[in-house]
Amino acid sequence: MIRAIEWVDAGADSHIRLIDQTLLPAEETFLEVGEVAQLIDAIQRLAVRGAPALGAAGGYGVALALLEGSRSGWSAEEVDAAIASIANARPTAVNLAWGAGRAGRFRAEGFERVLAEAHAIAAEDERANRELSRLGADWLLDRIGHRPLRAITHCNTGALATAAWGTAYGILHELHDRGMLELVYADETRPLLQGTRLTSWELHRDGIPHLVQVDGAASSTILRGLVDFAVIGADRITADGDTANKVGSVALALACQRRGIPFVVAAPHSTVDPGTATGDLIEIEERGDEEVLAFGGVTVATPGVRAFNPAFDVTPHDLISAIVTERGVVEPGSQPQPLFRADSETVAA
Amino acid sequence: MIRAIEWVDAGADSHIRLIDQTLLPAEETFLEVGEVAQLIDAIQRLAVRGAPALGAAGGYGVALALLEGSRSGWSAEEVDAAIASIANARPTAVNLAWGAGRAGRFRAEGFERVLAEAHAIAAEDERANRELSRLGADWLLDRIGHRPLRAITHCNTGALATAAWGTAYGILHELHDRGMLELVYADETRPLLQGTRLTSWELHRDGIPHLVQVDGAASSTILRGLVDFAVIGADRITADGDTANKVGSVALALACQRRGIPFVVAAPHSTVDPGTATGDLIEIEERGDEEVLAFGGVTVATPGVRAFNPAFDVTPHDLISAIVTERGVVEPGSQPQPLFRADSETVAA
Repeated sequence: MIRAIEWVDAGADSHIRLIDQTLLPAEETFLEVGEVAQLIDAIQRLAVRGAPALGAAGGYGVALALLEGSRSGWSAEEVDAAIASIANARPTAVNLAWGAGRAGRFRAEGFERVLAEAHAIAAEDERANRELSRLGADWLLDRIGHRPLRAITHCNTGALATAAWGTAYGILHELHDRGMLELVYADETRPLLQGTRLTSWELHRDGIPHLVQVDGAASSTILRGLVDFAVIGADRITADGDTANKVGSVALALACQRRGIPFVVAAPHSTVDPGTATGDLIEIEERGDEEVLAFGGVTVATPGVRAFNPAFDVTPHDLISAIVTERGVVEPGSQPQPLFRADSETVAA
Repeated sequence: MIRAIEWVDAGADSHIRLIDQTLLPAEETFLEVGEVAQLIDAIQRLAVRGAPALGAAGGYGVALALLEGSRSGWSAEEVDAAIASIANARPTAVNLAWGAGRAGRFRAEGFERVLAEAHAIAAEDERANRELSRLGADWLLDRIGHRPLRAITHCNTGALATAAWGTAYGILHELHDRGMLELVYADETRPLLQGTRLTSWELHRDGIPHLVQVDGAASSTILRGLVDFAVIGADRITADGDTANKVGSVALALACQRRGIPFVVAAPHSTVDPGTATGDLIEIEERGDEEVLAFGGVTVATPGVRAFNPAFDVTPHDLISAIVTERGVVEPGSQPQPLFRADSETVAA
């Protein structure tokens, strides 16, 4: 299994190794990141991306800052500033600041303790992903039947987006390992093509039969009965179960409801945000026009034309058959509200 | 208003003029098509496209064959063969063979009669489009309210896709001319980007405020209340009102149903196929992998990965608020089945 991010132990030359996701699938280039400035650049260029993977990047980033600070004779203030600049490299990615903060709490105890915490963040993410994958596969086979299933997914939720294994992708991988996955339809995921570039690359490496399709084909692939279920990841899950994910996700949910097949959300429990009551309260990030209007740097649209480029959409909880985290499976339709409470425990699961 | 296809009278040098849609919007290049082989090439390269526009191309193609045959001393059989090759240049586009057949019936009466019939095909299409646009605009304003409306559309249904004026686009244009159109969200329409390349170019020329978005954004744009209605064209409408259109269309219909706003299909009555009972019986054309997996000739996916590339989807009639043709407005939900009968008259309208 590919690892989007890992720590390479080499004494004073210890560093972070990232696969450069901007070059996939054409080139499998690893970045050996030994300096904080390099790490920040990699995060901002999206060489490393995906909420859980950025949590690990935040943790390892603190270890990197301590190591570089000791090598370069930084003051405590300079180390603090470096850690803060990692945490804020992408302000909207809450996991990044969360990971940096969690490892940073152990600064006073020294480099080894910080590194251990960063490893713990990554290990916990992998453990959560493997557990939710088992739970999700069990739920799907119980619900649909113990036979090889046909799936549809959107965006990238695999090893590249996490510390290891994947979330929605992890469920597909688990089903494949059990001999219970026939075929995956992978949406290309415009505008940045994470499906074509990343998910398909992972599926190909893992030997999982799949077809890439344009996002507009998702609804009819579901309505025509070509798949047994849909599974997506999540960027944020509110207290009532409304789920923000890559734009295009809710189209799958609407079609699954009409067809009467399961629509499943898979994410580590850290994605649950019980402090936000409903999806209406989630602010939807809007990105630049050029992602929509240009391909490979060449503008396709008439000059002067503008785009609307929301990065996410919100799937209302009544369209979600199951929310799978490492703590259990929550079925929004059959469980009382709120599904999740601020005590961090799943209410319903 | 741009014309996708027109006849240029110049004695023995008379010919068809096409705007090369493969070069839009970067270049506005007109093709002066004086030979049958050139016309067939233009049709196959999609330099001219859109079901109604291809009907006119079929009609004018017969006139072109007669003119070239007379100039080059073709036998009657050679002229027949040329006409047949035009009619079959794209076997799935029924309008092309229909237009060639309709004009071809007058061969024995000579070139001028054939040309008159080709002009009639084009004129009837424009008349139908203008009439259905008035009817559609009336229906929308009556249903939603007499105020500037916000719309979403998919693919290209404008002057470029028709002999003139457009179908779904024609309704938008009519609303704009009445001062009753606030904003259009135009789906980019993967894989061939007819929305970004063609619809946006027409909207820009016509001074209609609009934003281009990825197809995956359509559902959430509708669910978030950013539009008042959706309108699309049609490639085929069955007896019960099920509608085949560019892949991605049914996603808009599902979201409109949930949001409770009108989803409108607009097409000339010639698009109605009363011989096909329901959408399940429509064969969905699958196109090549490279349209999905490559951008600008460069493969984006991992080598060896395959695509699923259906060109159309089917919107079930119960998701359609209104089918607008030049003969009237049919509301599938409130009218008895079948909506359309083989006598070519609209049953319900």
